[in-house]
Amino acid sequence: MWKPDRDSKKPIYEQIAAHLEQRIACSEFPPGSLLPSERKLAEQLGVNRSTIIQAFAELRSIGLIESQLGSGTRVSQTKWGVTPQYALNWRKYAEGGNFLPNVPFLRRIREALHQQPALIDFASGELAGSLAPTEEIQQLMREHTYTSYLGYDNPQGYVPLREALVTYLARYRDIQTTESSILITSGSQQSLFLIAQCLLSPGDAVAIEDPSYCYSLPMFQSAGLRLFRLPVGSSEGYVDEIRKLVKKHGIKMIFMNPNFQNPTGTLYDMARRSQLLDVASELGIPIVEDDPFSLTAYDSPVPPPLKAMDTGGSVIYIGSFSKIAASGMRIGWMVAPNAIVERLADARQQMDFGLSVIPQQIVAQFLTSAYFEPHLERLRLQLQFRRDSLLEAVRQELPGLLTYVAPQGGLHLWCKLVPKVHDGKLLEEAIRRGVVFVPGSVYGSSDGYVRFTYARPRDPREIGPGIAKFAEALREAAD
Amino acid sequence: MWKPDRDSKKPIYEQIAAHLEQRIACSEFPPGSLLPSERKLAEQLGVNRSTIIQAFAELRSIGLIESQLGSGTRVSQTKWGVTPQYALNWRKYAEGGNFLPNVPFLRRIREALHQQPALIDFASGELAGSLAPTEEIQQLMREHTYTSYLGYDNPQGYVPLREALVTYLARYRDIQTTESSILITSGSQQSLFLIAQCLLSPGDAVAIEDPSYCYSLPMFQSAGLRLFRLPVGSSEGYVDEIRKLVKKHGIKMIFMNPNFQNPTGTLYDMARRSQLLDVASELGIPIVEDDPFSLTAYDSPVPPPLKAMDTGGSVIYIGSFSKIAASGMRIGWMVAPNAIVERLADARQQMDFGLSVIPQQIVAQFLTSAYFEPHLERLRLQLQFRRDSLLEAVRQELPGLLTYVAPQGGLHLWCKLVPKVHDGKLLEEAIRRGVVFVPGSVYGSSDGYVRFTYARPRDPREIGPGIAKFAEALREAAD
Repeated sequence: MWKPDRDSKKPIYEQIAAHLEQRIACSEFPPGSLLPSERKLAEQLGVNRSTIIQAFAELRSIGLIESQLGSGTRVSQTKWGVTPQYALNWRKYAEGGNFLPNVPFLRRIREALHQQPALIDFASGELAGSLAPTEEIQQLMREHTYTSYLGYDNPQGYVPLREALVTYLARYRDIQTTESSILITSGSQQSLFLIAQCLLSPGDAVAIEDPSYCYSLPMFQSAGLRLFRLPVGSSEGYVDEIRKLVKKHGIKMIFMNPNFQNPTGTLYDMARRSQLLDVASELGIPIVEDDPFSLTAYDSPVPPPLKAMDTGGSVIYIGSFSKIAASGMRIGWMVAPNAIVERLADARQQMDFGLSVIPQQIVAQFLTSAYFEPHLERLRLQLQFRRDSLLEAVRQELPGLLTYVAPQGGLHLWCKLVPKVHDGKLLEEAIRRGVVFVPGSVYGSSDGYVRFTYARPRDPREIGPGIAKFAEALREAAD
Repeated sequence: MWKPDRDSKKPIYEQIAAHLEQRIACSEFPPGSLLPSERKLAEQLGVNRSTIIQAFAELRSIGLIESQLGSGTRVSQTKWGVTPQYALNWRKYAEGGNFLPNVPFLRRIREALHQQPALIDFASGELAGSLAPTEEIQQLMREHTYTSYLGYDNPQGYVPLREALVTYLARYRDIQTTESSILITSGSQQSLFLIAQCLLSPGDAVAIEDPSYCYSLPMFQSAGLRLFRLPVGSSEGYVDEIRKLVKKHGIKMIFMNPNFQNPTGTLYDMARRSQLLDVASELGIPIVEDDPFSLTAYDSPVPPPLKAMDTGGSVIYIGSFSKIAASGMRIGWMVAPNAIVERLADARQQMDFGLSVIPQQIVAQFLTSAYFEPHLERLRLQLQFRRDSLLEAVRQELPGLLTYVAPQGGLHLWCKLVPKVHDGKLLEEAIRRGVVFVPGSVYGSSDGYVRFTYARPRDPREIGPGIAKFAEALREAAD
């Protein structure tokens, strides 16, 4: 990313003016389009707002941009000989389409992380770089010869990876399957997207857990689905709730995350699993079982997934490499009946023509290598250590200010705040102090909940100071 | 892929029965679902149909499957204790959704290539393995240390790759741009998908070339767009045609492939390019310029892309690594105004959370390495040699039977057949003889056109025999 050169003899504002002139000249900002605000540019480039004002004045003086009070700064149309009334309104296109933008809080968080790389990050739901098997993956890349054909891949994904997953799923998840039942996707995100876009129709009703990371995914709304809530916590009357939703709203599919549920960390017991399968089979409703966290279980292994107990064939199972190794590989997988896998593979070809073969080869090698088991063991220990550091910091910095259930696996701590607080205000106060988290309302809960991803700070030693900053923000934001 | 073991003492039909039992047991084929037909299974497993009939009889005798005349073979429902009336109808889900399946001819071609790997392939629109820089890429993977963070990537794509593309675009395509104007996508396919899904709304009208590879992409229809034809060949009245479409149908966007257009190989001249830009700017209609083939130009370089001449900011430019190096890397790029790039990057996050960083790193290194120029030179010579081999074979085997314009770049030859022929019949006759091509109707033309991708046969020495087989098929299929 371009930044002004502070050692140059050329004044900063002139460098910025030249930089903006270049971006305008190459149509990044076409005639008539809106430039980013002075405040936003100042944050992006790490300068004072007055420097941006000077740069804008420079560009205004040569007729390249025009500012109007209240409507921002635009690229001049006359400058380029374009008749104003016909100038292409790109913003209209950017706001068109039936695809919803991301949740505003998540956009704000992404923006803050982009602008302030030093933020202590409890928000991004992924592993820190130090928890990923970076060296092992490098070693595999150096050792192995990639002689495979670098053409378009099999639509269901690279065959040796699917074969490696058959063994992996049998060994770690008690799932007996075949490579022809597996579809490789770009993380579990793409599995969910394919299901929402291609197996359901606009207007269809689906059940999702409440709270649930599904609320953070506008893809469901973009697909025109009606979402109904299934409370995560209660086990009493849980099955009756499903029956009621089916009867009243005709729900067509249930989305679940039974192991260390995101965000609450809930682990479903065997009784709940059996009940779920029974009711799904009885009512003929498919369950989408998303299972990214089960291999992180700290102490004792988790119960078998629904898919392993699914004699009725009601379950689509989704797994991922992201939360147990490296999200940047973008490798996830779906295990589903033949008709579903073939349909989704065909649809995915139209969207992106499949995944790159290289990361698929690397993941296939990693899963079958002697590196995998020790990596998992180290990961579990490190996550447990991070969880303990977080709980210790919470006890020290926030005594009596929040309640939680200590998670036995996964990457997240879900907390209820005792003081009354407005989510947006708390988030801004936290960002100002150098720490970021996800407000619970992103997951569909009311204000006053927080998700801390303890797996994500660069170093576990950031956890204590991060919580101290959060505690300050909470005291400031509380009514 | 599983195949029966011909050296085993166990009879083939028993091996197949056991294999199917396993796939049924693991819910690849859930209770009540349809098994593949006897014919299809026989083709897939490379056995006689009678062997499949024996295997089915075996499974029927243990009550695992049921066959009904005219409705195929299904997995028993009673066997698994599922009440038939409630059994989950996966097929209903597979047929739901608002996403259209691929064009039938393309599905047939993919199936044939899957089942008969020895087919001479003039159909897949990509480079042969021998034309890809496989060794160079391996070398780069061995030499370089991938120390980068393997977490989620920047939503617009890996920054060093975008920086490499700024230099690449300036050097090879005369396009002056900035890394913040670039979005990395999974090939050009994903660029087109994002534009169709996120910038346009169902019911919107767009203009595409006739014939055009766009017709082979059901993604436009899946997005609910109305497609209007802009004839590729005629230059007379071309601009009037655009004005007419805008006036009559209110078209919102124009999709073009001005360099060695797919499938016709047409190269737009400077006059056409200027006219296009003028009319787009005058009417305020964006042009999507897809430019995957320009670097393959055999003799003289192609004119600058529309994007390089686009002072009005009307053009979204799409490029790709697929047709100049390796489609299996799945790296494409879009250059567009800021508002568009930000919007599409946000939407793409919801679909697949971005691309793997590894292939992006490799492509960034390759484009800036000393390997790139010699690779391009070799590629051009080899493509030219393949084109000449194809034209020679056509002259020998099909004298007077087809007409064409010899392409000066790209991967394809577009032919009009002189004899009257039915596309489907010709394709089946060709597959039976061991060669496959794409019928022109896939691209929206009438019956009697053919696209030969001479870049794709494994070895240029396959081109002659492939055309000989095609000539036989044509003689058989002609009325």
